[in-house]
Amino acid sequence: MTSPRLIDAQPRDLRMRRTTTADEIKRLILARGLEPGSPLPTEAELIDALGVSRSSVREAIRTLSTLDIVDVRHGHGTYVGQMSLDPMVQTLVFRGVLSPEGSLDALREVVEVRLALDLSMAERVVEVARGAHHPRLEELVVEMDEKAAQGDMFLEADREFHTRLFELVGNGLAKQLVGAFWDVHTAVLPQLNIAPAEDIHQTAAAHGAMLRAAVAGDVDAYRAAVVDHYAPLQRSLSRSA
Amino acid sequence: MTSPRLIDAQPRDLRMRRTTTADEIKRLILARGLEPGSPLPTEAELIDALGVSRSSVREAIRTLSTLDIVDVRHGHGTYVGQMSLDPMVQTLVFRGVLSPEGSLDALREVVEVRLALDLSMAERVVEVARGAHHPRLEELVVEMDEKAAQGDMFLEADREFHTRLFELVGNGLAKQLVGAFWDVHTAVLPQLNIAPAEDIHQTAAAHGAMLRAAVAGDVDAYRAAVVDHYAPLQRSLSRSA
Repeated sequence: MTSPRLIDAQPRDLRMRRTTTADEIKRLILARGLEPGSPLPTEAELIDALGVSRSSVREAIRTLSTLDIVDVRHGHGTYVGQMSLDPMVQTLVFRGVLSPEGSLDALREVVEVRLALDLSMAERVVEVARGAHHPRLEELVVEMDEKAAQGDMFLEADREFHTRLFELVGNGLAKQLVGAFWDVHTAVLPQLNIAPAEDIHQTAAAHGAMLRAAVAGDVDAYRAAVVDHYAPLQRSLSRSA
Repeated sequence: MTSPRLIDAQPRDLRMRRTTTADEIKRLILARGLEPGSPLPTEAELIDALGVSRSSVREAIRTLSTLDIVDVRHGHGTYVGQMSLDPMVQTLVFRGVLSPEGSLDALREVVEVRLALDLSMAERVVEVARGAHHPRLEELVVEMDEKAAQGDMFLEADREFHTRLFELVGNGLAKQLVGAFWDVHTAVLPQLNIAPAEDIHQTAAAHGAMLRAAVAGDVDAYRAAVVDHYAPLQRSLSRSA
């Protein structure tokens, strides 16, 4: 059984604060065994169940909605949310744009963490991808190559390629992190006067090399392709620093 | 200059939504060059500057406060926030406790990402730590060993050790991620009936081995100590699965 105490587990700075209506709603979600996508009790039911005012319930729902713990679908109702990393993306994107002189550092840090995650999962990716046919990943590689040949960007295909790779290894958190950092990365990039189309061919080609290395079961080649993938961007960041 | 368009950069699902009062407040923070810790204009000034209602401003401040983009200090005023990863911790902790059958998976994913980050930063940590004296890290190692000898936990010392190591390498995002995942980890752990005191000596000793390897400039020994550090927990997770 889940101890009620655990629901109050909070980041360090918040540990001493009083229990809020938002905490009570979290408890109720747990006690009723609700899951992401389940309808939440109505506002009237929550007021009744928790013995608090309408405005407290509304404030709490807003807070939980910001954290993607509940999902307010206007005109439809309120549901348990997907608990995505979108709140983190919003905060990090704003931190990135907030400080023009610090934005390069912010992007450098995001790129380092992306590279670290990609390298650290190399063995797992190769293990699950080797010897198999991956039609969607192959399509994405072709799409990125074609777009690069026309001098076009390929943001959506790029994001899908990276999140699909991490989906293969079965670590949902790593997959979400990769997607989240990808979003922060692409949101902060235009601010920096770094031509993202520079060396666009090398970036596109590196995806193909990653996939071929994974299918061939070659971890070293996979790592080398990951390093190649980030090299154009890291060169741009060094030059801009 | 920062283009106003960039402030609207949002996670994918939110891109098509209308501009909110929260977005307007973010724009104002940028336009006025406010930094974390700077006082925000008063509620009355915001109502006037943005031409919106008091309730819209209050809702927006609550949303931004949940994201740690503003910091409401009751009785003192409202400031630009630190933009920490605390919102992500809250969401991930709740996701971890929400699904008792999925909690093991959630913790396994967090441990894998922590291990990946620690391994991927090994070269950088060794590079900056080698040959130097690190009094606080040494104190923390002694403290963890002493507590382990008494059969006690050493959560605070453990967290400080890991965040200080990443502080050394100068990647603020990685440092914050390590702290955030550490918080998720320790909040989810008690739910799982995994004795965290099990093999407590090996965990405590691994911190000392990490520090000695870094100071000696030995990347391989550092990586081995990182793997040892997570081994007791990974064994517990395998047994519980």
